[in-house]
Order: sequence, then C-alpha cells, then structure tokens
Amino acid sequence: MITFITGNQNKLREAQEILGNINSHEYDLAEIQEVDARKVIEAKILEAQKRGLSNFIVEDTSLYLDGLNGLPGPLIKWFLDKLGNEGLFGLIGEKSSRATAKTIIGYYDEQGNVTYHEGVVEGEIVPPTGDTNFGWDPIFKPNGHEKTFAEMSSEEKNEVSMRRMALEELKKHLHEQGK
Amino acid sequence: MITFITGNQNKLREAQEILGNINSHEYDLAEIQEVDARKVIEAKILEAQKRGLSNFIVEDTSLYLDGLNGLPGPLIKWFLDKLGNEGLFGLIGEKSSRATAKTIIGYYDEQGNVTYHEGVVEGEIVPPTGDTNFGWDPIFKPNGHEKTFAEMSSEEKNEVSMRRMALEELKKHLHEQGK
Repeated sequence: MITFITGNQNKLREAQEILGNINSHEYDLAEIQEVDARKVIEAKILEAQKRGLSNFIVEDTSLYLDGLNGLPGPLIKWFLDKLGNEGLFGLIGEKSSRATAKTIIGYYDEQGNVTYHEGVVEGEIVPPTGDTNFGWDPIFKPNGHEKTFAEMSSEEKNEVSMRRMALEELKKHLHEQGK
Repeated sequence: MITFITGNQNKLREAQEILGNINSHEYDLAEIQEVDARKVIEAKILEAQKRGLSNFIVEDTSLYLDGLNGLPGPLIKWFLDKLGNEGLFGLIGEKSSRATAKTIIGYYDEQGNVTYHEGVVEGEIVPPTGDTNFGWDPIFKPNGHEKTFAEMSSEEKNEVSMRRMALEELKKHLHEQGK
C-alpha cells in the first residue's frame, strides 16, 4: 500500500478519495530553502529514502505570483505566516494580479523509481473573500470562475483543484504500471 | 584551528581580519526553509556535526523589513534573486521603511559546546544607490549614516558591519575561553 507522507488530514482524505486505499505517516521532513518546488520534492524524497521508506508519495503545493516574479512559490507558508492573506494581497499593489497554483506529487515506488505528477491552475489574486480556514484560498480566484477557492463548496473546489489534477495524473500512472 | 564553513571569500577574509588564523571549507549544507535565523544556524550546525566536523563556525546574515512584518529574514536571497534590489525596494511602497540587518554566528567547539554570537544594525530601506556587487547593500542605509552600505568604502562599512560585530563577540568569547 502507498504511504502518503503528510500530517495533513485534508490532503490525506483527498488522496484517498482518488487513489483508494492509501495510508499516511507523518514524518518530520525538513523543507529545504528553495524556490524551485521540484527541488523541494526531490529533497523530501531523498530524506524519506534515507530513512528506509519505499512506495511513498510526497506533495508540495505552491503559489506563484506574476507580479512578484514567481515569489513566493514554495515559500508561501512564510508569506502567509508573516503577512496573512490581507498583507499578501497588499503586496501586489499595482502589479499584475496573475497567479499560478501548482501541486507536484513525487512518487517513489518499490523499485526505487521516482516519477513526478503535476496539477496546475491559473488564476488571479483578489481581495480576501470567503472562509479563512485554509491557507491562501481566500485570495485565489481560478480563471473562468466567479468565486475564490474559499467561497467554493468542497465539490466545486475539487472540480478545479490542482491537487486533484496531480492525484489523477498519479492514478493514471499507477494504472499504466498495472498497480 | 577554527574552520569557517563558507564558500564566500569575502566573509572568510573579514573573519580572518578579526579572528586571525582560521581556515575555511565549503560544505554544501542545505538551508532549511525557516524564517527564524537561529533555527537555520542550528540546522547547519547539526548537519556539519553529523559529518564529523568539530571546532567550526557557521554564519547567517538576514534582513528583516518592518513593513513586511519581518520578512524576508533568512529568505532574503530568494527575494533578491526574484525581485532584485529595485523590486525589493518597490515591495515596501507606503509601508514602513525600517529594517534590521542581523548576523548570527554559531560556534561548535572541540568539546561539542555551541555558542551564538550576534551583530545587529538598525537602518532603513532606500532606493538602490551605489555599487551593486554585493547583495542588498544598495538599499540598506544604517541609522546615523548618510550612505548605503553600497556607497561606503570597505573601511566605512566595516565600522558598522553586523558581521564584524558578531565576529568581535565571538573573539571575546574565544578570549574568555583562553583560546
């Protein structure tokens, strides 16, 4: 059975809905200081592998702001921590409000092969609107929608979720591998 | 002899001027993703220690902006990388231009004792002025001075350098230890 290395129950539930029977384990994998999400994932995989783990997935979801030349990317948690959604929105000012939300899942299989599976959603940064209980959801409005992630129901959000897309990509890969 | 774990020749030279005979070694110590510089230093020490090193120093110099609630701190290199000094200055906008530059040196001695030595300089963020060859020097003007770090001669800058202060603190400590 695949192990999802995460302490986040919401992420685990989403993964279970799509992949079926997976379990999770919360390992304290240090995130390296890096704006390239792929490298963050690679470092996590390396660390988990060093601990003797196999057949596992790790995940990173990052937010890239055009107006900040791609910042914060994987550094989003610190921006939120220090500035909140209001402050993050304020940073944009007169600059472009275009933004990209991206999930990368790294899968390390029983044979030691690593594959990456991405989901990308384009959108824009708007004044905070909606429920404030999940990260930057209140300021991200996906293109083609009139609501921020925070204003959507779980069903609506799942329809456009970058994490769901990445999980679907992984599912396809597992299927091709006969798993 | 103390080993300074750094690949930066300028930092090594400054340390040699103050501490005398030290050598350097460039180890590729991954920086963890953290806005608390002390934790960045702790992680570096732990990693160097795991590799069997002893009697060494590691260093972190961070820039904390009041207007961004303390960001970027140790994340400064990514802000510079993505935004440059002009973009970093632009982030401040109407917000407070007060800033704090801080160097922390962690010293791991032959007995496995760890001590921390800090140098702090208060100042403000100004439009980029002066030589652009060293980090955020063009936008940092220390309080009580009319020039940015980038406009100062090395002698002038050394007089107010947070790194020099931290090195002097370490020197005092070494002296007290009879080293």
